[in-house]
Amino acid sequence: MTKQRVVILGSTGSIGRSTLEVIAALPEQFEVAGLAAGINWQLLAEQARQFRPEAVSLVADQPGRSLCDVLPAGCGLFTGTDSAAELVRKVQADIVVNAIVGVAGLKATLEAVRRAKRVAIANKEPLVVAGPLILAEAARHGTEITPIDSEHSALFQAMLGGSKDEILKVYLTASGGPFRQWTRERMDQATVEQALAHPTWQMGRKITVDSATMMNKALEIVEACRLFGLRTEQVLVLVHPESVIHSIVQFRDGSFLAQLSSPDMRVPISYALTYPKRLAGPAKILDVYALRQLNFEPPDIERFPAIELGYEVVRTGGTSGAVVNASNEVAVDAFLNGQIPFGKIVPTVRQVLQRHMIGSADSLASLLEADNWARRQTAALLGVCCRAGRAV
Amino acid sequence: MTKQRVVILGSTGSIGRSTLEVIAALPEQFEVAGLAAGINWQLLAEQARQFRPEAVSLVADQPGRSLCDVLPAGCGLFTGTDSAAELVRKVQADIVVNAIVGVAGLKATLEAVRRAKRVAIANKEPLVVAGPLILAEAARHGTEITPIDSEHSALFQAMLGGSKDEILKVYLTASGGPFRQWTRERMDQATVEQALAHPTWQMGRKITVDSATMMNKALEIVEACRLFGLRTEQVLVLVHPESVIHSIVQFRDGSFLAQLSSPDMRVPISYALTYPKRLAGPAKILDVYALRQLNFEPPDIERFPAIELGYEVVRTGGTSGAVVNASNEVAVDAFLNGQIPFGKIVPTVRQVLQRHMIGSADSLASLLEADNWARRQTAALLGVCCRAGRAV
Repeated sequence: MTKQRVVILGSTGSIGRSTLEVIAALPEQFEVAGLAAGINWQLLAEQARQFRPEAVSLVADQPGRSLCDVLPAGCGLFTGTDSAAELVRKVQADIVVNAIVGVAGLKATLEAVRRAKRVAIANKEPLVVAGPLILAEAARHGTEITPIDSEHSALFQAMLGGSKDEILKVYLTASGGPFRQWTRERMDQATVEQALAHPTWQMGRKITVDSATMMNKALEIVEACRLFGLRTEQVLVLVHPESVIHSIVQFRDGSFLAQLSSPDMRVPISYALTYPKRLAGPAKILDVYALRQLNFEPPDIERFPAIELGYEVVRTGGTSGAVVNASNEVAVDAFLNGQIPFGKIVPTVRQVLQRHMIGSADSLASLLEADNWARRQTAALLGVCCRAGRAV
Repeated sequence: MTKQRVVILGSTGSIGRSTLEVIAALPEQFEVAGLAAGINWQLLAEQARQFRPEAVSLVADQPGRSLCDVLPAGCGLFTGTDSAAELVRKVQADIVVNAIVGVAGLKATLEAVRRAKRVAIANKEPLVVAGPLILAEAARHGTEITPIDSEHSALFQAMLGGSKDEILKVYLTASGGPFRQWTRERMDQATVEQALAHPTWQMGRKITVDSATMMNKALEIVEACRLFGLRTEQVLVLVHPESVIHSIVQFRDGSFLAQLSSPDMRVPISYALTYPKRLAGPAKILDVYALRQLNFEPPDIERFPAIELGYEVVRTGGTSGAVVNASNEVAVDAFLNGQIPFGKIVPTVRQVLQRHMIGSADSLASLLEADNWARRQTAALLGVCCRAGRAV
């Protein structure tokens, strides 16, 4: 069997590192063809020395010669804002894993969808910001999209139990984040440290804050509707603090199929790479005898109004996903920098969405324009400095 | 679409009645071709008037003319010990649902496997007593076997998530029955009423007692190993008092798929009939928002030693399944008749199995001989009267 060539966009982040662990555990199946990073050039170089990709890319260009010196001989290097997209264009790959947080990876995703056989999507932006565009390109090029987000991987797996028209509803489970049992008043004044203390998952900072506001569920609602062609009323949220059941599919005959695993991203990463096969990987295996108790509760929309924004984006379409995503990025950044209280994140995003004149989402340019507009608006509303997109 | 012709063996029992409810809800898909009952001729006649089968059968021959008088015109009637098997031979069917409690339905099951396109098995005896024989016949005739037992239906559904060699283990969930939290001493003296007070499922009396001893899990272990070709070490029991998760499949990549539903047998019955499709039926739909809490614990082998008998039957093979099943039937009967204490059921079965000289299971005759031997032995041990097989 020839090895599958994998390009990882966002290799130095949490998902990128886990993806490399999966690949290291399956050396007969996969080889690393390319690695794209944002600023962490030391780790990128280390990864390149271990996995020997054809080329790597780095958004930041500060390291200059230092990076060249530590890359293995013959390893190509692209730098600058468009370096991830360039890497995808230049390095032939069977699978591109997209784990770039933020809108920064959008261009590279579109390139990947046009070139690779499969794009495994770990970040929410491709489908939230540019879902219809990405999916249309994937359909045109016959590219498979496999989800890495644990909830969507769970749905993807549970859906094997029936055909699409047999699916009645899906339940995206949510840990409820660190503030599940906090009052709204207490939550409004939560510190960065408190927001980053996620009870079950070890993730990046941005995503961990999204889990605390439950904005992550809003984005996941959009992803689920688009990826699986579901209507908003079919996609529900179920709070499940233990994060063991990663989502549930309800079929019309009264059967529900659920996927369970340890809260270890190497499980969905592995499946996104090996689908439709399953191979033993490095993931921590769930001990069902240690489960003891699993809890479930409806989400509290009063305390977590972010959830509603997900449904709104699906219903509104167009540039609304780009606006919510960009506004949320800026607001979360401001919160992480100590510039705004936690309680200001979601109301700000809503306010920016309300001010937005929804446009068509048929080109990357119009989406990036909406993204930019939302960033400026959000920054202005919050009185913070505006940055165009997050670094990779 | 032509309707699927269904024959129901054991139509007046709990599963039989639920099967008719499923069929009544799906009149475009199914029609009743035949109904086989044991003694309840009044209900059989009522079912015949509602569903207009080609013929019915009744083991008991007491009703005589009374039954003939109330059957719809043109409905054939077979009576006597072999009447169910005769019904299967004479009435052409696409699907035979086998829901005859006890070894009585074995001959009819073999006939069904040779004639129908699909045999949906609700009773445990075909696979426990005559698994290799039944499965060999099914393979020879290309007959599909679909499970109705909720645990095996759950496994059957969850296994759609991967291929056979990707399955590491399966967990048969068990409610733990009414005595889950009882001490062994208290359990030993449990009354019939207490044993029949099942916390979650409404089932027949024999099966409800099997759930109280957890002998049902022993039989299910045998069924699972045989039906899915699993080794004993792959089949585990997980106590889950709420009976919402009906079983779990563990794949080698760290993913687990579980099937959930209300504890309503119409869910697995419906799937066994419509597989691989799923159709909306009459089953009570689970409200995941009402779940609140699901609990799990390892089974207590000390208090429920019956479980171990399941593994022993799989390891031993031959006539051991027939012996355990028959001995258990007699012992449960004696308990239900107030002749022996609850605590005597399982030790008696074990004792009978120990005394048994394991024979080959390659013919129905040798299996029925072992069955008979075990009944006589058990009756003698318990000092009760011996009956050859249970009435349907």
